[in-house]
This record gives sequence, C-alpha cells and structure tokens, in this order.
Amino acid sequence: MIPIQVAGRALAGGRLPAVCAPLVGRTRAALAAEIAVVAAKRPDLLEWRVDFFEAIADPREVLAAAADLRAASGDIPILFTRRCEREGGQPIALAEAGVPALYEAVAGSGCVDLLDFEMGNDAAHVAQVRALARRHGLPLVLSFHDFQRTPGEAELRERFAQAQRLEADIAKVAVMPQSTEDVHRLLGATLEASRSLAIPVISMAMGGLGAVTRLCGGVFGSALTFAVGAAPSAPGQIAIEEVRAALATLQRATSA
Amino acid sequence: MIPIQVAGRALAGGRLPAVCAPLVGRTRAALAAEIAVVAAKRPDLLEWRVDFFEAIADPREVLAAAADLRAASGDIPILFTRRCEREGGQPIALAEAGVPALYEAVAGSGCVDLLDFEMGNDAAHVAQVRALARRHGLPLVLSFHDFQRTPGEAELRERFAQAQRLEADIAKVAVMPQSTEDVHRLLGATLEASRSLAIPVISMAMGGLGAVTRLCGGVFGSALTFAVGAAPSAPGQIAIEEVRAALATLQRATSA
Repeated sequence: MIPIQVAGRALAGGRLPAVCAPLVGRTRAALAAEIAVVAAKRPDLLEWRVDFFEAIADPREVLAAAADLRAASGDIPILFTRRCEREGGQPIALAEAGVPALYEAVAGSGCVDLLDFEMGNDAAHVAQVRALARRHGLPLVLSFHDFQRTPGEAELRERFAQAQRLEADIAKVAVMPQSTEDVHRLLGATLEASRSLAIPVISMAMGGLGAVTRLCGGVFGSALTFAVGAAPSAPGQIAIEEVRAALATLQRATSA
Repeated sequence: MIPIQVAGRALAGGRLPAVCAPLVGRTRAALAAEIAVVAAKRPDLLEWRVDFFEAIADPREVLAAAADLRAASGDIPILFTRRCEREGGQPIALAEAGVPALYEAVAGSGCVDLLDFEMGNDAAHVAQVRALARRHGLPLVLSFHDFQRTPGEAELRERFAQAQRLEADIAKVAVMPQSTEDVHRLLGATLEASRSLAIPVISMAMGGLGAVTRLCGGVFGSALTFAVGAAPSAPGQIAIEEVRAALATLQRATSA
C-alpha cells in the first residue's frame, strides 16, 4: 500500500487515503469562487476537471485559469484532468486530437502537479501524455471508469495491471456497482492490486451503493478518496468534512 | 439483510446496523454507574456481559443486578450474555454446568430481552438455552468467536449456517484478522450469509485491523455493531458517538 508522492512528498503525510476535492467551475470567475471555498477546507489535493471549463478550446483562457488556480491553491497540489465523455466527463468544445496539446500546454505552465488521463483513449494519445508528463516531471494517473457496471474480478485485476504496464505512476479504477457484491469485489481487487503493483492505486465504487468505498477504501489500499469541497464531480461523493471525520475515527481505531 | 426484532419491533427502526453498547461492571454499584452513563448515550441495545460480574455464582445478586439494569435501561432492550473464557470472556466463579440455570433464572426474571450463547458450548447446554429462550419468548443469538484468527471462507459460511441449523434467531460471528485479506473475507461471508439465511446476522473483525467492520459491516449485511458507551468489551470497539457519526454519514450518502 503506497501513498501518492508529489514533488518527493507523500500526500497526507503518507496516510491512506489522501483526500482530493474536485473543482468543476465552468468559467474563470466560477473557478475562482470555487477554489476559495474548497482550498479553505484543506484537502490534500485539488482536481481541476477541465472538461467542465467552457473555454477549454481557448489555450489562453485555459492557461489563465490554471494560473488563477495555482495562485489560489496555496501549498495544495493540483491534479489536472480532462475526463472524457465516454468515461463520465462533460462534452467539450475541443476536438479529441487537440487534447494532448492541451495537456502539453498546461503541464508546461508549471501550474499543475499531476495529470490524469484515461487509458482507454487512443493509444497514441496515451503515449504522448505519458511522454509529456515525464518531460515535465509530473506524476501521471492512468484511469479507467465504468459508469454502468462493475467488471468481474479478472477484468478489474487487468485494469489495474494495464495502468502499470502503460507506465502510469498511479493507477485509478472507478466503477458503478449494481449490488453490494460488486462493491465487495472492487475492494478485493483494490487490495490485491495494492499488494501486487509497484505503484499507488486509487479506486472507488460510485453512487449510493458504493459510498462506503469513499470512507473505507483506504483500508483496502486505495491511496486517494474524492470528497466534495463545493460541488461533486461524480455520483456518491461525500462532503469533505464528513469524510475527514470518518477517516479520523477509522485511523484512531486502527492504530489503537 | 434482516434487522433484529425485539418484541415485534425492529431495532434502530430497521436500519442496519443497530448499535449495541456493552456493560462490563464487576459489581452492582459499578453496573449502576455504568448504565447511567451508557443509557444516556441512547444505544439501540445494551449488552450485559455477566461474565464480568463478580457475584455471578450468587443467583440473588445476579437477579438484583438484572433488576437494577432493567430499571435504569428505560426503553432500551437488554441482551444478556455470558461470554465463555474460551471465546474471549472472563473466568467465572460458576461451574459450567450451572450456566443454563443462570440463563433460566435471568430469562425468567423478565429483566432482559435477548440472550446470547456460544454454539461451541456443550450441545446439551445449547439445546437447553434454545428451549428456555423460546419458553420465555426471548430471541436467541447463537455466536462464534475466534480471538486468534479468521477462518477460511468455507468455515465462515459454515459458522453462520450452523447457527441457523441450531435454530438461532440471530447468528453472530466474530473473528480476529491477521491481515486486511481476512477482513475482506469476513465481510464477504457476512454478505453471503445475510442473503442466504432466513435470520439476521451479526459479524465483526476485531482489533485495529478489523475496526473498519464496526463502521461498514452494516453495508455488508451485519445487523448489529458493538460500540463503547463507557468501556469496551472486545478489542477494536469504537466510541458510540464516533460510530453514530460515521453511520449517519454512510446512511446519508447511501440514500443520496
């Protein structure tokens, strides 16, 4: 069970899970208002979901927003994520072919600290983003999301392994459970991956049925949980204050 | 997933898990002080662990203590439990042969609402306690505890099934995990038992490693979690205030 490292420092002092709050503002003004609220709640990480940003196709606006966020984030690192529509993101006004250039520009700005990219994207794009992240010295999350179902045990194992094979620095798997059995299987696959892989793993089961994984996933090896600072970015996310309280209870009880 | 019923009413309004606080006072005076503190915290159930009671061999003292507890418990039902030494209880000044008579006396007093007895006891005693519980109209928990390890999947399944075969009204399995894999297996066996059996099931993994099950076990079908009112009765129990807060977070998130 490996914590996420950013610039040589483990998030949350190495405790599992660290807490990440998403930013989903549609405009620079909305993002500025949002990060003021969210950063004050002291998450361990901020995720900028740029697919919510209306001016995503305008590089100047994107870089200006990134600079705003960096200035307002204080010492909290920023994860930069364009979630694709197929994996639960917003439709964007930017052709898919332009996405690696977007990542290149933002990574080169020095305004973000980690990148997330779906491993289900075009293989050439995955390779490009892998290369540019390395060039800019940024850890890369390679992610997989299924908003409909929870794959079987073998496929879950393969999704975590695939991320490592593609040279991810961090592997992420998010699924939609249809039953508590699905939730249990996701936790088991997470535990196994956290033991067998050489990189940190992140997982969650989404929606109400999966909400338990947002509190207890760390016990089963997930290095990061997403919690609501101002607005959720996926179904089932819980307010950061409540997540922190439950994690503190668990951590006290676990070390007692 | 079936809630525990007492006198025709589901504990905790049918939510899983209900919260039970143990009482471990060694004297009548200590028990009186303890229940004053614990009942004020409004657990859904109180468990009187009579193996902690020094005068356990004196029926008059036991019945007087039971009456004290009944008077102080208000509307909170009481589970009566002699946990045997082999399964994590205290050594008692009462010969094993006298234990069914102890249960008979207390069940007949009208001061308790449920009984717990280990299914690993002498089969004749299990049958006696089964019969007397029925005669007095009290639900019977048949329980199994392993304070050393966590049995494999097949044995866990068998322990839950054995309780139902012995005509328990509620099946309880408590184990000591040596790894997070053990914790995961216990949750899986609980989920399976909660689907397949016709009676409510209770489970927990003890100690720090298992503490997560005291918060999240209800999601996986456990009908009851034990939490500290004044003093713990087993390793890994968490303060009732913290358990309630985490359960409230989970229940809000699950129904969102």
